[in-house]
Amino acid sequence: MANLQGNTSSTVHQEYLSAAVEIARKAGEEIRTTFQLKKTIEIKSSPVDLVTETDQKVEKLIISFLQNKFPDHSFIGEESTEAGSHCELTDNPTWIIDPVDGTTNFVHCFPFVAVSIGLSINKENSVGVIYNPILDEMFTAIKGGGAFCNDKPISCSKQEDICKCLAIAEVGSSRDKAHVKTKLGNIAAVIDRGAHGLRSLGSAALNMCQVARGGGDVYFEHGIHCWDMAAGAVIVTEAGGTVIDPKGGPLDLMKRNVIAASSQQLAETISSCLTHIEFPRD
Amino acid sequence: MANLQGNTSSTVHQEYLSAAVEIARKAGEEIRTTFQLKKTIEIKSSPVDLVTETDQKVEKLIISFLQNKFPDHSFIGEESTEAGSHCELTDNPTWIIDPVDGTTNFVHCFPFVAVSIGLSINKENSVGVIYNPILDEMFTAIKGGGAFCNDKPISCSKQEDICKCLAIAEVGSSRDKAHVKTKLGNIAAVIDRGAHGLRSLGSAALNMCQVARGGGDVYFEHGIHCWDMAAGAVIVTEAGGTVIDPKGGPLDLMKRNVIAASSQQLAETISSCLTHIEFPRD
Repeated sequence: MANLQGNTSSTVHQEYLSAAVEIARKAGEEIRTTFQLKKTIEIKSSPVDLVTETDQKVEKLIISFLQNKFPDHSFIGEESTEAGSHCELTDNPTWIIDPVDGTTNFVHCFPFVAVSIGLSINKENSVGVIYNPILDEMFTAIKGGGAFCNDKPISCSKQEDICKCLAIAEVGSSRDKAHVKTKLGNIAAVIDRGAHGLRSLGSAALNMCQVARGGGDVYFEHGIHCWDMAAGAVIVTEAGGTVIDPKGGPLDLMKRNVIAASSQQLAETISSCLTHIEFPRD
Repeated sequence: MANLQGNTSSTVHQEYLSAAVEIARKAGEEIRTTFQLKKTIEIKSSPVDLVTETDQKVEKLIISFLQNKFPDHSFIGEESTEAGSHCELTDNPTWIIDPVDGTTNFVHCFPFVAVSIGLSINKENSVGVIYNPILDEMFTAIKGGGAFCNDKPISCSKQEDICKCLAIAEVGSSRDKAHVKTKLGNIAAVIDRGAHGLRSLGSAALNMCQVARGGGDVYFEHGIHCWDMAAGAVIVTEAGGTVIDPKGGPLDLMKRNVIAASSQQLAETISSCLTHIEFPRD
């Protein structure tokens, strides 16, 4: 049983969190074991959108474990969706899973890979678990119960001023020339507005964890998926931050775009700097 | 006395390495202690080029320790140079020190900060120590003796193909509009040539360590300083990689620009993609 110190929400949410933490650690062991080995790579949407056997194996491991514990729950997984499963978010408790967030990092042994497990109930992001097995960092949150890294409370920086912010963004895996141009233009715009710097870890989930722990002040990205942000959305919110649709308004988990920020004001300022890209919904 | 397992070079080099490891750990303790505290920031070359009391205190600590052990040696330190010390690389054994590489990360609690200590003898990069006190990773190398992380041997990926590479680059701290534009253009060029992705950790020293450990395949940057790359140059080379002047030819430590790569071929391909920027020499 994981130590759930500090997460003070309802017993049933604790049970969900505990299960997610348990299977994230098991999945993490598998990732850690294969991390330094040469991987067999397949290509997905573009020559730089990669998947490995480990992604697929770990997703099966996680879904089978949670399905066994919670047979009435629904599941959305990155690899199941790629393999043709229907990706639909209903009011039913739905586990939203990225088995290896940061697959390109995993392939290259760049030490930012994470198991990301979110639970949505009545379309509310209710539980979030993100585990980096290489650095052994377990980020957890239950809606209303605060956010934690390795059982210690974490909180966002509360930064409101773009001129004092450290921003996190990614070029991403789309190689559509217009997308790349817009994304680099967005980075240029944020730098031009005075941000202290720009960081890229190559994992949406871990970028959100950096915002949650106060290591970065804002993360924005267009073109990610619900499994990249479902867990992170709870963790950032519970750490005192905010997650929004980059065009403004509440985050829509299926809309492929996110700003996660240490404050509403910073989120809105960043939103005003960005040229937005629309993607087909998850 | 640090465990120097595996570093098989001459006794005198071992002594230099041992001293650098010892003081890097002490400096790391100071950085770790102040990491989560609110820092008093001063501004250097631009509103985003930051320095803290810790940078200055830690540099004094390192120089005083090494000067006491090696009174005939010379010293180049980031903060001493900023304070007006002459920055000259001669044939005399010269310690080249960045007390806190990644000061912006340090200010923001982004966990990539490093103590970087290089030793140049007869203008050859001879000893390199880079310590990340937050992740407790100690990278070490002696010329001819291999490269290590926490006493375990590390090696570059040997990747030669830009289409299979993970690249690391930075926007940096210059806010000269032409510089920012060229740097983002260089990132665009490398992405356009097919690189798997682009990462930015915000620390030149730790970017070089990622190349050395095979976590990234290539790192390039214009506008850094000798103290950002002196230690990393030895560590990358001893890990089987290469460091060059981005315009081609051997690295010139005082010329402010670097490509560190897993192979000569990849370094040259990246060189051919870049628009180069010249800076006044250190």
